[in-house]
Amino acid sequence: MGEDSKQLGESIMKSCNVIEEQEEERDPESNSLNQPLLKRNRTLSSTPLALVGAKVSYIESLDYEINENELFKQDWRSRSRVQILQYIFLKWLLAFLVGLLTGLIATLINLAIENIAGYKILAVVDYIHQERYLAGFLYFCGFNFVLTLVASVLCVCFAPTAAGPGIPEIKAYLNGVDTPNMYGPTTLIVKIIGSIGAVAAGLDLGKEGPLVHIGSCIASILGQGGTDKYQIKWRWLRYFNNDRDRRDLITCGASSGVCAAFRAPVGGVLFSLEEVATWWRSSLLWRTFFSTAVVVVVLKGFIQLCNSGKCGHFGQGGLIIFDVSNVTVSYQLMDIIPVTIIGILGGVLGSLYNHLLHKVLRLYNLINQKGRIHKLLLSLAVAIFTSVCQYGLPFLAKCTPCDPSLPESVCPTNGRSGNFKQFNCPKGHYNDLATLLLTTNDDAVRNIFSSNTPHEFYTSSLLIFFVLYCILGLITFGIAVPSGLFLPIILMGSGYGRLLGMFMGPHTNIDQGLFAVLGAASLMAGSMRMTVSLCVIFLELTNNLLLLPITMFVLLIAKTVGDSFNRSIYEIILDLKGLPFLEAAPERWMRNLTVGELVDVKPAVVTLHGVEKVAHIVDVLRNTTHNGFPVVDEGLALPTGVTNGATEVHGLILRTHLIQALKKKWFLKEKRRTEDWEVREKFTWVELAERETNIEEVAVNREEMEMFVDLHPLTNTTPYTVLESVSVAKAMVLFRQVGLRHLLVLPKYQASGVTPVIGILTRQDLLAHNILAVFPNLAKSNGRENKKGRSH
Amino acid sequence: MGEDSKQLGESIMKSCNVIEEQEEERDPESNSLNQPLLKRNRTLSSTPLALVGAKVSYIESLDYEINENELFKQDWRSRSRVQILQYIFLKWLLAFLVGLLTGLIATLINLAIENIAGYKILAVVDYIHQERYLAGFLYFCGFNFVLTLVASVLCVCFAPTAAGPGIPEIKAYLNGVDTPNMYGPTTLIVKIIGSIGAVAAGLDLGKEGPLVHIGSCIASILGQGGTDKYQIKWRWLRYFNNDRDRRDLITCGASSGVCAAFRAPVGGVLFSLEEVATWWRSSLLWRTFFSTAVVVVVLKGFIQLCNSGKCGHFGQGGLIIFDVSNVTVSYQLMDIIPVTIIGILGGVLGSLYNHLLHKVLRLYNLINQKGRIHKLLLSLAVAIFTSVCQYGLPFLAKCTPCDPSLPESVCPTNGRSGNFKQFNCPKGHYNDLATLLLTTNDDAVRNIFSSNTPHEFYTSSLLIFFVLYCILGLITFGIAVPSGLFLPIILMGSGYGRLLGMFMGPHTNIDQGLFAVLGAASLMAGSMRMTVSLCVIFLELTNNLLLLPITMFVLLIAKTVGDSFNRSIYEIILDLKGLPFLEAAPERWMRNLTVGELVDVKPAVVTLHGVEKVAHIVDVLRNTTHNGFPVVDEGLALPTGVTNGATEVHGLILRTHLIQALKKKWFLKEKRRTEDWEVREKFTWVELAERETNIEEVAVNREEMEMFVDLHPLTNTTPYTVLESVSVAKAMVLFRQVGLRHLLVLPKYQASGVTPVIGILTRQDLLAHNILAVFPNLAKSNGRENKKGRSH
Repeated sequence: MGEDSKQLGESIMKSCNVIEEQEEERDPESNSLNQPLLKRNRTLSSTPLALVGAKVSYIESLDYEINENELFKQDWRSRSRVQILQYIFLKWLLAFLVGLLTGLIATLINLAIENIAGYKILAVVDYIHQERYLAGFLYFCGFNFVLTLVASVLCVCFAPTAAGPGIPEIKAYLNGVDTPNMYGPTTLIVKIIGSIGAVAAGLDLGKEGPLVHIGSCIASILGQGGTDKYQIKWRWLRYFNNDRDRRDLITCGASSGVCAAFRAPVGGVLFSLEEVATWWRSSLLWRTFFSTAVVVVVLKGFIQLCNSGKCGHFGQGGLIIFDVSNVTVSYQLMDIIPVTIIGILGGVLGSLYNHLLHKVLRLYNLINQKGRIHKLLLSLAVAIFTSVCQYGLPFLAKCTPCDPSLPESVCPTNGRSGNFKQFNCPKGHYNDLATLLLTTNDDAVRNIFSSNTPHEFYTSSLLIFFVLYCILGLITFGIAVPSGLFLPIILMGSGYGRLLGMFMGPHTNIDQGLFAVLGAASLMAGSMRMTVSLCVIFLELTNNLLLLPITMFVLLIAKTVGDSFNRSIYEIILDLKGLPFLEAAPERWMRNLTVGELVDVKPAVVTLHGVEKVAHIVDVLRNTTHNGFPVVDEGLALPTGVTNGATEVHGLILRTHLIQALKKKWFLKEKRRTEDWEVREKFTWVELAERETNIEEVAVNREEMEMFVDLHPLTNTTPYTVLESVSVAKAMVLFRQVGLRHLLVLPKYQASGVTPVIGILTRQDLLAHNILAVFPNLAKSNGRENKKGRSH
Repeated sequence: MGEDSKQLGESIMKSCNVIEEQEEERDPESNSLNQPLLKRNRTLSSTPLALVGAKVSYIESLDYEINENELFKQDWRSRSRVQILQYIFLKWLLAFLVGLLTGLIATLINLAIENIAGYKILAVVDYIHQERYLAGFLYFCGFNFVLTLVASVLCVCFAPTAAGPGIPEIKAYLNGVDTPNMYGPTTLIVKIIGSIGAVAAGLDLGKEGPLVHIGSCIASILGQGGTDKYQIKWRWLRYFNNDRDRRDLITCGASSGVCAAFRAPVGGVLFSLEEVATWWRSSLLWRTFFSTAVVVVVLKGFIQLCNSGKCGHFGQGGLIIFDVSNVTVSYQLMDIIPVTIIGILGGVLGSLYNHLLHKVLRLYNLINQKGRIHKLLLSLAVAIFTSVCQYGLPFLAKCTPCDPSLPESVCPTNGRSGNFKQFNCPKGHYNDLATLLLTTNDDAVRNIFSSNTPHEFYTSSLLIFFVLYCILGLITFGIAVPSGLFLPIILMGSGYGRLLGMFMGPHTNIDQGLFAVLGAASLMAGSMRMTVSLCVIFLELTNNLLLLPITMFVLLIAKTVGDSFNRSIYEIILDLKGLPFLEAAPERWMRNLTVGELVDVKPAVVTLHGVEKVAHIVDVLRNTTHNGFPVVDEGLALPTGVTNGATEVHGLILRTHLIQALKKKWFLKEKRRTEDWEVREKFTWVELAERETNIEEVAVNREEMEMFVDLHPLTNTTPYTVLESVSVAKAMVLFRQVGLRHLLVLPKYQASGVTPVIGILTRQDLLAHNILAVFPNLAKSNGRENKKGRSH
């Protein structure tokens, strides 16, 4: 698996704009300064999955640490009580707005999908009723084709990052990796419209993943106080223009998205906690919970409105809630056997799905690289295949006479939704496969989850359903439309769950609908490897707490089995995208390597002096890609009077701040320290929060080149440091736990003439993959066990 | 509040064995070495709340960091794949056992309580039926008196730490503070029996808190592989004899306890996550979930058994599950008004309760200090007062005729439990106050939560109930029996909730039972300040997901209102106990102080050389209380050839390892470095995990005093460090996030002659309270806002 992704990374490399290549173009005659910090792995690209041509610029790490320089401290001290209260109030207001907007947009998406799909299905049913099968077929395929075309064109042309689920990128963002163009307003709009189109077109994908991304986009845009692009910026939101607050908001957004997708507020919070977020605090738990509560209130209002019939073709499955609370869930100790079987099957099938999806995505990547037209064609081909199967396969199924105990209005139906579709059958009969296929995905899930209907489906129909959705689940995910993974997996899982239920029927009391639910849960755990959050989401979906112990059991088994084969689908996608994601636990062999050894293989660190010549700064900025530089003062008078060769570590300065100093021409004629007020006149803390990294825009004339800049007030005087003797494992724990961007390595020797800072470690340097590229023998020692050891 | 606790701390100080006094007794002529690290605050005692005479020795910080010395590394490298799998398997086995045992013990406790209380109530009802009121009274009081006496004597004489809920101590443990004698087998047994006695005696306390403590005790004992005391130790559990693994196990245990208390598996996990744990990982989430799943399965089996009538007097309320799922929960937007009122009331009353309880506990503390007899008398007085009220007050209530629509078997009842108790009423009538008072607490909660019974209770009865339980809730908690806070708060909250429901009745659709539930939820949020976990616990208790949005809303309001008055009850208790708990977020003023300034006010750090003279080690160990010493090599040949005055920071050595080296007489005749094999012959990694801190037991003769010890192989070569210019805020974040015990402070200057390690920071040094004692002016600058800023 690891080797595969490496190869893929290399293939991606050839066609995409990747950081190193950009750098080399800029400055072809590389001197020692612009060598990469470490031999970076070749997968460092951020190509949106299976999409080529995406405008990917530069992946920067986020600053989750507080940059404690003079200006920050000044600002910090001067913040009045009112400002602090204002800040707290705004935090909550933003959490409220995130919830409100996510809820409203989710409502809008649901309304649009249900109405478009409802209109389509009613028309097709009408054709079939008139026995105009070909016309119905053409209408169905044509309708879906157009919808897919709209979604796909939008994604391909305007916002390539809107394709796919977006959850892996959000996970990476919260880990500290900023994928560019992920959270802009264009992405948001394309995601909304694209999601409506793709889901209404009946493709095997859900609106759940996209809703998570939409929630995060809303949060990010709100957090920035609007967007630079459209000149909408609220000044009073300037306090939130930093990575820390934006991270918190995006966590709220992601939770709200999950909540909106499943109407599962607690599940949404737990999903963020278990799967998405890297850092977590109790206070954040609370705020996230508030956002999801708002979402739920909005959705509840919307459902009340729709129940009174004001939503047009809005079907029952609008917000998937599989109400199996009318089943009397009763199970005995003996039912542990079928439940165990479902769990094991879920684990095996889930990991198999992950494995196959990985292969398919690699193949799609090659196709998508050939250009926009290829991307479009791929999407449309999948759409047509899906439509043909959904329309054609029900003709293979036998017609079943309705249960006479059911009222005529229920069986058969020709309406928008319903569990017994007449399709091509004579009066009083229904087509069970049409019930599952010729409907929206949400309704299909409702129907297959339906309880107390043990004889509704034929084994053959369920088998066809299951196989079809296995194929669709594999081929649909990678196409250029917004797509979620939840629904395809639920459909597949419910298929084999219900099948198993039919086989086990005589030996167990568990209802077939419940089997379908458990199948879906097991496949999700087998593929996504979540437990608590899935359990709660399923609880909130099925609205039946008695299911809890049995669901827990299935999820635990499925996850355990799945973990013994491969990694979770999100981790596989993260790996495919080459995002530098820092794992929770260090690898075992990382204890055998010290940061000193790691720093030794890197080029010498570039340090700046406290008062530095402009020419040198410009030179350093032009010739390196580093984003942080240690600031060291030399030859100082020590408090103890020692002056001979003494040096002082002053701190760390960021590239953006250096560029700002140059842009503002904050130069000194002579080499001297500045006063506090001088800095404050020139810079504000808010300005420093802006990220500008383009040194090319800075014009410095020759005279200015000979002047000096006092870096002291702009330097973060409190960088985190490690001794060179510290193991990489511990450095990584520190790096991840505290949320760092740069970590200074100090010498363990204390003497004159010793370099005061012997290196800087960044996220890239601590990635297992990158370290192994330089120290390949480490993995052999006892690294083989680490996969096992880590996943538990 | 802060001042109060300081005074209290001082009063505790006078009577308790506190670390400084012990030290001073031992070595009255203090030299510079044995000065405390920082002027420690006077509340550093670990007196169990409102209990005096508890044998408290020394509160040590836990080592959550991996001590990477030579021996560990050797052991780490040599661990085979089989051993790693064995370790993982054992981890899961232990999680399973924790769940199983907690479930079984919870079952046992429930069975015992329900049978004892049931027997008692039936007998009393019998007396009353015969109109032998005085005999009934004496029987009732006498029974409760004996039960309380048993519980109290056990707690006072054998395990003072078993009194109270134990949750604050667990919270402190998971934060890194080891309260002594908290998790031993004696505590466990006393807690079980004491809890049975106290709850069966009808005292206003619950088994919930004690169950959390019991779960943690089981986890701790299992993790140690038995206990030293009783010579039961399993060798194959030696891998778990470290603070990290024990911490994880105790987290599992606490979750299992909550789960067993409320039959709420997800709520249990979330409770640990939100309220108890300081560190959290995804993999721990999963294992905790597994434990709670096991608990639920055990409880489910037990309930099935009891439903078939094999549990004697086991009542319906055995495991409190307030099944309001038969209510059609319907609420409109207008119902937001009563819900808001409940939330605000909950916040106000909750914080008021916290405030008053704090005062009561301080008073009790004074009483309890006077000796064991006083403790016993206090407990018994409270027990008698409770019994008198519970028996006597129902006579004040009017008899109500039964609703004729109810069957005779339901109203009135004279049985074990039931919603319409006849008590002293004529046939066909019931006494509503007896329904609430003369029953177990669990049944009382069931009755007051009962839905669709709008005319069951009189306003006056509810008022009496509410006022009585307010008084009992305040006076019962601090007595010397195992007591949980959950149930008293639920009882109080449901009282005012139902009262409010009666007043609001004409204006709302919400059922009175639901009002009671919401009242209980609001008061819990107002006092304990949890949201997500409470919400899930209430969901799982009431088994009704439709309550979710409304519960969330109430909890959020109550917490917000409560937070604006004071801190959560657990934090108040932690503060009362003087446990050095590290808060999640640094105070605002901590950014204005550097660790360098902090270290300056401490005495100079005591460092050891890599190869150190035995006499010096003994001297240092005898004359300091420090648990860690930096190891520094001097005059070394540097790689670059500089030798003049160069020093090298080698790492940090723990006191226990020094003592082990002395005990094992691992001495060298000459000053030299040892080889790897020499160490491995003498020490094993497992032995080093033992904690021995008693230097007095070590006998070193005069000849040995002149010999040397090579400390290098025992030194942790990878200590975490900070530069002296780093702010205290950042150091604290590092300390807490990574779970440290010692943090080395390095000089920012690099030159010969500079001390290589200028200080060590411990937990005590980073506590806001301790820092403010030395730098009182810091709080004035902008510290006033920090309370507000921190709680959000």
